[in-house]
Amino acid sequence: MLSACTTVPQAPVAPVSAAPTIPPGMQFLYGSGEAAALDHQAYNVLVDAVRRRIASEKADPKAMSDRTSAVLQPGATLDQPATIPCGDRPRAVVFDVDETLLLNLGFEYDDARHPGRPYDAALWQQWEQAGVDRVEAVPGAIAAVNELRAMGVTVVFNTNRSAATASFTEQAIGHAGLGTAKHGETLWLKGDLGSGSGKDTRRQAIAARYCVVAMGGDQLGDFSDLFTGTPQQRRAVASSPPIHGMWGRFWFVMPNPVYGTALKGGIDDVFPADKRWTPTNSGEK
Amino acid sequence: MLSACTTVPQAPVAPVSAAPTIPPGMQFLYGSGEAAALDHQAYNVLVDAVRRRIASEKADPKAMSDRTSAVLQPGATLDQPATIPCGDRPRAVVFDVDETLLLNLGFEYDDARHPGRPYDAALWQQWEQAGVDRVEAVPGAIAAVNELRAMGVTVVFNTNRSAATASFTEQAIGHAGLGTAKHGETLWLKGDLGSGSGKDTRRQAIAARYCVVAMGGDQLGDFSDLFTGTPQQRRAVASSPPIHGMWGRFWFVMPNPVYGTALKGGIDDVFPADKRWTPTNSGEK
Repeated sequence: MLSACTTVPQAPVAPVSAAPTIPPGMQFLYGSGEAAALDHQAYNVLVDAVRRRIASEKADPKAMSDRTSAVLQPGATLDQPATIPCGDRPRAVVFDVDETLLLNLGFEYDDARHPGRPYDAALWQQWEQAGVDRVEAVPGAIAAVNELRAMGVTVVFNTNRSAATASFTEQAIGHAGLGTAKHGETLWLKGDLGSGSGKDTRRQAIAARYCVVAMGGDQLGDFSDLFTGTPQQRRAVASSPPIHGMWGRFWFVMPNPVYGTALKGGIDDVFPADKRWTPTNSGEK
Repeated sequence: MLSACTTVPQAPVAPVSAAPTIPPGMQFLYGSGEAAALDHQAYNVLVDAVRRRIASEKADPKAMSDRTSAVLQPGATLDQPATIPCGDRPRAVVFDVDETLLLNLGFEYDDARHPGRPYDAALWQQWEQAGVDRVEAVPGAIAAVNELRAMGVTVVFNTNRSAATASFTEQAIGHAGLGTAKHGETLWLKGDLGSGSGKDTRRQAIAARYCVVAMGGDQLGDFSDLFTGTPQQRRAVASSPPIHGMWGRFWFVMPNPVYGTALKGGIDDVFPADKRWTPTNSGEK
């Protein structure tokens, strides 16, 4: 009977879910007050930090001459995270785009309806072009970029959206209320400078033109390409003494439990052996 | 054949999963560098804000005489969020405990092994007593409470752990490296002052003894009981003008996509109707 009833499950071509529930990460990021609070928190403290820094640099010639960028130098390490000197370059803040300034509501709505579908690069490419009016600014992002610009700070976008669809990304940013992004000036994309997904080459090119007073992102790679290894190694180095002081002061993080490098690891990776617990009367040892 | 093979699924008594994957929210919160960065960010900016506030109050008698608590007054609303005047009371910071200062690794490890198991209050009670050595401090939390205490600020814990298991929670906080918590003085629990899960009564009692210069939590209810309604209503009010300026300045949020009031809502609640997208060639309308 077992063999007669055992079948190989067939993945349907278009498995549209009618289930009322969606992944908890989407409930959190796109639907909750808690995620909105985290977003506002990050944008409030970014703008406050930049405002204080400008005041300090205007009041104190030494603060001005000693200032460095939030971008790491070529050859820096996460143990010795030396930053690029600013000289007298004008100020900028460098932001990632997706799930940092923009919520990709349309794409994720479609994704929620197809549970278990793996990431599809062609589908994402289609979205970059078709989704211009189906995105929304992250809570707090519009006010933040407006306040930065009012302080004379240039807003620069550094994203792994494709250079091939640059004009659509410019439109999406504008449509969401985040202002003007111009490819090659304030918008840097995957493919620019021959870069792949790594953003350091682009960051360094931006830091050659601007004093990057802050960076914002939802992935560790939005701050440095040096965050590599297992999730546990990345978590340890993000918490290590030279780096942990960057968060909320020069590097500003937005929450994203929906996709990206944070969502890796099995139960044995995530839970340290000495912290595991099995209740009594559970029928297990 | 269909009927012969159709059975009512039986929930096993102890459904231990051998699956290598765990909920993405757990990968994010307990295993990722991104969540550690968010935690450090919140703790860095909390400590920085308190340090600046103390310096300002010491330098400026008016700042001292005008100071108010981060706790809302009785009768305040989220439209008119008046805060409690401080008088000359000593400074404190009020923290939630679970997934704010402590990661409940042991409990969540067990939860990850039982997918779909609903919340079980008796199991949580067992955990409060048995899990004293299976918790870990949130990244950045130990340094933050130490720096606050070094500045003369009292660290007060306000949690919905049960008053009946107070001594175990005191031990868990101490074991994690977060210092001394004393029930009735610096530890406030569900059941204290006849309170249920609402924390306003306890917050107001704390604010009667201290000038609460900041609050930290992972749930909107850690800041005010006034956050109610649907996820969308809560999200809107967290982003509303009188409230959005609190985040990162007086109220400090830690990420938690694993449990709590953020994880609610179906696809139609979370994704606005005008932001939905269906790819071409998807076989759907």
